[in-house]
Amino acid sequence: MLSGNSTGKTLVVTCFGESHGPCVGAVLDGCPAGLPITVDDVQTELNKRRPGLTVVSTLRREEDQVEILSGVFNGHTTGAPICLIIGNQNVESEAYEQMRHKPRPGHADYAAITKYGGFNDYRGGGRFSGRVTAAYVAAGVIAKKLLGLIGVEVLAHTVQIGKVKIQKNVSFDQIRENVYENAVRCAVPESAMLMEKEIVKAAEEGDSLGGIVEAVALNVPAGLGEPVFDSLDSDVAKMMFNIPAVKGVEFGAGFQAASLKGSENNDAYVVRKGKVVSLTNNAGGVLGGLSTGMLIVLRVAFKPTSSIARRQKTVDLTKMEEAEIEVAGRHDPCIVPRAVPVVESCLALVLADHALRAGKIPKVIKA
Amino acid sequence: MLSGNSTGKTLVVTCFGESHGPCVGAVLDGCPAGLPITVDDVQTELNKRRPGLTVVSTLRREEDQVEILSGVFNGHTTGAPICLIIGNQNVESEAYEQMRHKPRPGHADYAAITKYGGFNDYRGGGRFSGRVTAAYVAAGVIAKKLLGLIGVEVLAHTVQIGKVKIQKNVSFDQIRENVYENAVRCAVPESAMLMEKEIVKAAEEGDSLGGIVEAVALNVPAGLGEPVFDSLDSDVAKMMFNIPAVKGVEFGAGFQAASLKGSENNDAYVVRKGKVVSLTNNAGGVLGGLSTGMLIVLRVAFKPTSSIARRQKTVDLTKMEEAEIEVAGRHDPCIVPRAVPVVESCLALVLADHALRAGKIPKVIKA
Amino acid sequence: MLSGNSTGKTLVVTCFGESHGPCVGAVLDGCPAGLPITVDDVQTELNKRRPGLTVVSTLRREEDQVEILSGVFNGHTTGAPICLIIGNQNVESEAYEQMRHKPRPGHADYAAITKYGGFNDYRGGGRFSGRVTAAYVAAGVIAKKLLGLIGVEVLAHTVQIGKVKIQKNVSFDQIRENVYENAVRCAVPESAMLMEKEIVKAAEEGDSLGGIVEAVALNVPAGLGEPVFDSLDSDVAKMMFNIPAVKGVEFGAGFQAASLKGSENNDAYVVRKGKVVSLTNNAGGVLGGLSTGMLIVLRVAFKPTSSIARRQKTVDLTKMEEAEIEVAGRHDPCIVPRAVPVVESCLALVLADHALRAGKIPKVIKA
Amino acid sequence: MLSGNSTGKTLVVTCFGESHGPCVGAVLDGCPAGLPITVDDVQTELNKRRPGLTVVSTLRREEDQVEILSGVFNGHTTGAPICLIIGNQNVESEAYEQMRHKPRPGHADYAAITKYGGFNDYRGGGRFSGRVTAAYVAAGVIAKKLLGLIGVEVLAHTVQIGKVKIQKNVSFDQIRENVYENAVRCAVPESAMLMEKEIVKAAEEGDSLGGIVEAVALNVPAGLGEPVFDSLDSDVAKMMFNIPAVKGVEFGAGFQAASLKGSENNDAYVVRKGKVVSLTNNAGGVLGGLSTGMLIVLRVAFKPTSSIARRQKTVDLTKMEEAEIEVAGRHDPCIVPRAVPVVESCLALVLADHALRAGKIPKVIKA
Repeated sequence: MLSGNSTGKTLVVTCFGESHGPCVGAVLDGCPAGLPITVDDVQTELNKRRPGLTVVSTLRREEDQVEILSGVFNGHTTGAPICLIIGNQNVESEAYEQMRHKPRPGHADYAAITKYGGFNDYRGGGRFSGRVTAAYVAAGVIAKKLLGLIGVEVLAHTVQIGKVKIQKNVSFDQIRENVYENAVRCAVPESAMLMEKEIVKAAEEGDSLGGIVEAVALNVPAGLGEPVFDSLDSDVAKMMFNIPAVKGVEFGAGFQAASLKGSENNDAYVVRKGKVVSLTNNAGGVLGGLSTGMLIVLRVAFKPTSSIARRQKTVDLTKMEEAEIEVAGRHDPCIVPRAVPVVESCLALVLADHALRAGKIPKVIKA
Repeated sequence: MLSGNSTGKTLVVTCFGESHGPCVGAVLDGCPAGLPITVDDVQTELNKRRPGLTVVSTLRREEDQVEILSGVFNGHTTGAPICLIIGNQNVESEAYEQMRHKPRPGHADYAAITKYGGFNDYRGGGRFSGRVTAAYVAAGVIAKKLLGLIGVEVLAHTVQIGKVKIQKNVSFDQIRENVYENAVRCAVPESAMLMEKEIVKAAEEGDSLGGIVEAVALNVPAGLGEPVFDSLDSDVAKMMFNIPAVKGVEFGAGFQAASLKGSENNDAYVVRKGKVVSLTNNAGGVLGGLSTGMLIVLRVAFKPTSSIARRQKTVDLTKMEEAEIEVAGRHDPCIVPRAVPVVESCLALVLADHALRAGKIPKVIKA
Repeated sequence: MLSGNSTGKTLVVTCFGESHGPCVGAVLDGCPAGLPITVDDVQTELNKRRPGLTVVSTLRREEDQVEILSGVFNGHTTGAPICLIIGNQNVESEAYEQMRHKPRPGHADYAAITKYGGFNDYRGGGRFSGRVTAAYVAAGVIAKKLLGLIGVEVLAHTVQIGKVKIQKNVSFDQIRENVYENAVRCAVPESAMLMEKEIVKAAEEGDSLGGIVEAVALNVPAGLGEPVFDSLDSDVAKMMFNIPAVKGVEFGAGFQAASLKGSENNDAYVVRKGKVVSLTNNAGGVLGGLSTGMLIVLRVAFKPTSSIARRQKTVDLTKMEEAEIEVAGRHDPCIVPRAVPVVESCLALVLADHALRAGKIPKVIKA
Repeated sequence: MLSGNSTGKTLVVTCFGESHGPCVGAVLDGCPAGLPITVDDVQTELNKRRPGLTVVSTLRREEDQVEILSGVFNGHTTGAPICLIIGNQNVESEAYEQMRHKPRPGHADYAAITKYGGFNDYRGGGRFSGRVTAAYVAAGVIAKKLLGLIGVEVLAHTVQIGKVKIQKNVSFDQIRENVYENAVRCAVPESAMLMEKEIVKAAEEGDSLGGIVEAVALNVPAGLGEPVFDSLDSDVAKMMFNIPAVKGVEFGAGFQAASLKGSENNDAYVVRKGKVVSLTNNAGGVLGGLSTGMLIVLRVAFKPTSSIARRQKTVDLTKMEEAEIEVAGRHDPCIVPRAVPVVESCLALVLADHALRAGKIPKVIKA
């Protein structure tokens, strides 16, 4: 379909809502019947990306209370589409009036005005706001539950904020235990402290930072993905680029692979405990567009938040002359920490979609 | 649709064929009626990725002769689906018999055998062979012609082979003039020579190299792309990851943007010659998933060719024990040069698809 | 996509909700920006199918109050997806408890229990309830407005209830003026009275009736429809069969055409007022899957309401033995009258989808 | 996707080719790996609709030789897309020159010229020719084989030609044994003779006939179909309307159901041999868009062949004035007999698609 607000082929998410409208939401279609799910399950995950919780976050405080409008009955999915909505409450729209004619650098404003002839809801970025990712997270909860049925686990963590990087090796346990214990969603507590400081400093300077989120998926069975155009990595990459502010995606050795030789980059197969595994994982768990049965590993690069508390050059579109803009509104000085659960959810959504396509998850979940 | 062999929503490519079957091909659906097209137009572009032409290329020599089976009448497209096939001729399948049970490291073999229960055509990689990209290029010819109608031009060039990189700044004229004048498809002749040497050296060592291809699109109108899930960058990225051996994609400042501050990364708007433009282009021409009207710029990382002339560790799947494999067959020591026209075609296909979606190209092309 | 709750390719409706859940609703994606729309516009149309309004209708009284959750700003569509919900209020679920194990004849119960392993929301038919068509009507309002921009008008009217048929020829003015003036949505007042009596009589006997709705579309431009698999008639037919209780669809001469000779059935072309028209319209405005520029005419057959106030034979699925059921709940003795606005909306949705596909409606509506 | 040349969601057919181009063909994507298939399997079915075989058929004699270009290896499907082409040989295009400006009554010519600005391949009807259905039949062979794996059988037969109808009750064995034993594809030999005569008589008068084809599917499991928009009946109906000349489709009691009372039309459930079945089958095997487990029964109405050997009124589009046309070319006086295998194939394609969606057929077929 032409409209761009649906994704997935088996587990389909149709997303709607604007930053300053009544709500953001999603319709999740294709979920098998019989999956146990409660409002609390969704709320718990949503809280991980909720704004206004930490020192490094926007002042916009939202309860992000989710409602399930359909598709769940007696605590289980019914097989019918699941509509989830998350109300918008803490809305201050006045700050955005100037945006109608003065596009904010780094934002979609100019392109959106051009595309929609000025009819787009510009308040808070409207449809282009990072707030839409709350719906990705809500839908992701169900994806994670489906993956759980076949033992697949998805994790994400911050590996870089501005110029502060973690040392490479973190265990899955470190990720599981530490990520949501600090404000920057980093698995290494010492790095987390440095990252936090970096964000606070940038915020004090009226500036903003970007960073990199790494995501991994454990126990993904070999053979997920559909060649040639719905390869697993292409679908994951597409989903990641649908998160606002993402500028790059790489799997396994990624851009570094370009400098390696074949003899260095190829992952040799061996047998371990009766299973085929590879000694290294430069592939990041995907070869020829199919999962290899090894760990799925990818990194997602986020640019610094476009809204900064500084005067910036722009254009007054009504007069077609240069102008300045001071972006008010309330913004995260670095969106990376709040992007962590979003990246996690997006990876889960794509994997669940492909697991369903491959027939790995039944159409009816039996207790 | 579930099957993974179609891509695009307005200009839809359905791809078929295997490396050692009768042919590879594509059905291109959704092309407006009235576009002038000849077999020669397609052949000219196909020749750019034809194997066996240069010192750095595989010994498999294919004529890559294209046939148009439908959708073109009296030298123009009719509005009906266009089926293009490219025959396979120089096939040597014997070398691949061992692959049935011994997956080649770096290739899709193991995942494919798992997925298809061993029924996949393993000869030459079958459906997973880079040969399928000949069909992308054939379809891309029509995409480029459609884009030409609205003044959009797509270029691609090699910016890195192994550890040899070009210096950043090349002009569009350099790209246009030089790329297909050297074996590595590089816009800088001196770098091209170094790259060529690097490939020859790796080949002599029985090894292989990867690299990075940069693609740009000029004159793309602002507002292409569909938020939130069919954003322009997500569709381009998806298409690129469908090229075998791609491990990373980034737009504009890309992964570097993660280390920048907002004040450094934001592209300020100004008015030039009555048009809104940005002073810098860290965005790579895409914000909020929409084209900004600036140059589209992206880089695509290719891993080194997986087939190397060395003994490698693998597993004999029939015995589930470790084994060795020497990959015979004929392979490019570096596929990056031949990937250049593929990257170009893939970018053109996505842009043409989005231009049609946005109604920028009419349903009937008038002379 | 696999899930069955979306329809359309340019103007896409994703539907959700159950009869006894919080609401039914739809997300309409792909609507151009700039279309004026208010809650009242939608409400007015919804009221035409509202239950509980006439003697021939169910006792379930619903306000059917619509809310617009997204995609509309300052009284115009924004180009973002439009989420519409219609709350369920007058819900009496107790009557449905027996349905869990005793499928009602004529309903989807047995197939649904089989398909969803018993997890389906059985209350009031759940996802299979005719109540979901309220969302079709809500979405249809926008489709009609879009068609209005290019002068296309859609009308529907009851031509048969049980064995009472209207005489064939009614003018468009009669349809426009009379249809919503009587309880059975018939363009001929005398026939309407007979039909009403017939329904009342059947209801008194604890029985139900079916009927036939005819729909027409005026001023549809020639050339809408996409051969070969998205022909206009195939898309209209598909949409009609998605209305509960529909058992047949025919265009123009329809089933009668099977008995005609070619010389009788072919519609001869002539020129009238500088336009190509046909003297007859046995084609019903569609040839080769494309609109001919003539009136689109189709008829849709509805079976009698499956819920009747009589004891019926069924099966107790827990014991796998024969049983009896008396269907309680509140039901229309004939759903045809309330189906009229639904048929109208469904035709409008398909035509608007195809008009957008054909580029007949701009991406941004200018005042 | 926007283009109309693909159908199905799990088993996807993309169709291409014109009546007088090099070939017609189809790409079938989504077929599980491991299905045994040979060229002969396809050829046998294609021969059933081959032109030029009987007294009641067109004089165009085509070998209809099929080639498999991809997706089959060692006698089994590989899981990759299967491209099938059927060459056009017995082409006489001269007769069609006048059609460029004088649309033939009953054909798509006028709408097609309008839609494609005159670029459409008009020879033999081009893309709108019934010849495209050869590709449906070729693809249908694979669908039937897939259905065979789960015991589903599809049958079709002529029940009416012009005004000659069969008496209602024919057994499945009669259909299996008799249909392809006579020229009109009728299960009742005596009726077949009358029908044949009727066609010969119409042909002698330079006229043509229509008719009705009934299709049935046996052993379809309960629960196929996806509410609300991809219901089983809606998908079957859509597919049937994509066969040229179809003007009506009805299931079970169909249009007759409109005159029945609920108490007459409802199919009572009983238990027989431990299975839930219904005593009657007015539903035609579909309720609420889901298969009920009973026999699927539908009827498809075909209009008389539009090409008749008589002078007809039309319009000269270059002069916009009335004109006459005598349609030359070679045509079936009644296409119903050759439509029988097409209806059968179309039903099989939709059922196989839904069986795959429902997970009833495995992704890999084991011997």
